[in-house]
Amino acid sequence: MKRNRKLILVSNDDGIDAKGLKSLIEIVKPFGDLLIVAPNKGQSGMSHSISSNEPLRVCKVEESENIAAYSVSGTPVDCVKLAINSLLDRLPDLMVSGINHGSNAAINIIYSGTMGAAIEASLHGIPSIGFSVDDHSFNADFSIVKTHAVPVIEKVLENGLPEQVSLNINYPVVSEKDFKGYMICRQTSGVWKEGFDKRTDPFGRDYYWYTGKFYNFEPDDVATDEWALKNNYAAIVPVKPDFTEYNLINELKKWNI
Amino acid sequence: MKRNRKLILVSNDDGIDAKGLKSLIEIVKPFGDLLIVAPNKGQSGMSHSISSNEPLRVCKVEESENIAAYSVSGTPVDCVKLAINSLLDRLPDLMVSGINHGSNAAINIIYSGTMGAAIEASLHGIPSIGFSVDDHSFNADFSIVKTHAVPVIEKVLENGLPEQVSLNINYPVVSEKDFKGYMICRQTSGVWKEGFDKRTDPFGRDYYWYTGKFYNFEPDDVATDEWALKNNYAAIVPVKPDFTEYNLINELKKWNI
Repeated sequence: MKRNRKLILVSNDDGIDAKGLKSLIEIVKPFGDLLIVAPNKGQSGMSHSISSNEPLRVCKVEESENIAAYSVSGTPVDCVKLAINSLLDRLPDLMVSGINHGSNAAINIIYSGTMGAAIEASLHGIPSIGFSVDDHSFNADFSIVKTHAVPVIEKVLENGLPEQVSLNINYPVVSEKDFKGYMICRQTSGVWKEGFDKRTDPFGRDYYWYTGKFYNFEPDDVATDEWALKNNYAAIVPVKPDFTEYNLINELKKWNI
Repeated sequence: MKRNRKLILVSNDDGIDAKGLKSLIEIVKPFGDLLIVAPNKGQSGMSHSISSNEPLRVCKVEESENIAAYSVSGTPVDCVKLAINSLLDRLPDLMVSGINHGSNAAINIIYSGTMGAAIEASLHGIPSIGFSVDDHSFNADFSIVKTHAVPVIEKVLENGLPEQVSLNINYPVVSEKDFKGYMICRQTSGVWKEGFDKRTDPFGRDYYWYTGKFYNFEPDDVATDEWALKNNYAAIVPVKPDFTEYNLINELKKWNI
């Protein structure tokens, strides 16, 4: 790969064969050389997990003048760490993750392997963007992202992002004429409540499947990422993994423990 | 379990047989009835991940008048979700997670299954505390936690915690006479940089093991959770999983995308 071209790291959580990854590669290819490092199978819901208890396998799946691609037997965060620390000899100029099949707005961000990868890259000082579409299907339609992602990528390459900050961008599933553009906003407060589906296997043993419903804690008229999606905007939330609830520090000091 | 007694949910990420879990059970037993739901094997580094792609198995491993214990073939967050949605008919009064073998201060929180479980419980409105000791060893010494955890648990039961807030408590490994007490503080800014150890298996195939070193981005004199641990305090960080970097919202609006 040439030193005078931009270097872009690409990963995802739906795996190296996902349609969303292929769409993202098409979008970023004009910007520079690509290093694609993605899980060798679906890693949806793997959050920020790392495979510290087992060895990782890396397999080169493509190499051309401007693209090298590897599949990894681990999580999205494993992919980013391996790329930065073992597969590359310089930091990428940009990291992009996705395009995720399904929304990572609201509290979805904490379960998301796509955002896990983007956040991990941001920790190492790489401007990073996670892209997601509000459609879980295997064959999700990524055309809105393809049409509108370029100006955001240009701005991030031009301006950079502050230390440890990434962007969480979620796109609605709408036609081009109904799409309202981008809204910069904050993460929606809410929770997924599960209703596990209990079944019995052919051997008489019980097992549980996840099912669930999202509860939005926000009023209807507040501009959050969920509101943006519902109103045909793409939501851009700047993200930093500082979990501290600063508002409570002084209150806890009064407990005198 | 009796309705007039407090109900306490206990989980961890080191698994149902970990010494840290047994120590935590001893600490919280006097406070009420316990439901213990923990992974059936070590799930360190599993962050906030969920097993949405495979069925979960649940095995009752203990039942007495005041304690019921289950092991789960999944992650710490799976355990909490199953407990709340399928194993209990009312919300617990308190959730405790740990005691983790190893620190979850600084950016460790984002990789931590122990804090994943505590944060998940907080999303459902349960006051939650993650306990960790700065010692990764199998036979870590939990005596400082055993001696000092009770006043914190009492305060949390008495005052509750705001919606979606949990506590991340990390204890240093020191003798009782050197222990300085609790410090309420914020999460340290820093990053783990990996130096993957590349090896070759007996079949000639390469594999990688995680190794790594933590880089602390903070000045030496700032009271963060890492500073507290290094100075023989136990660090209490109030935690909320809102990833929004509010400081950047107005700046991003100026990009006019």
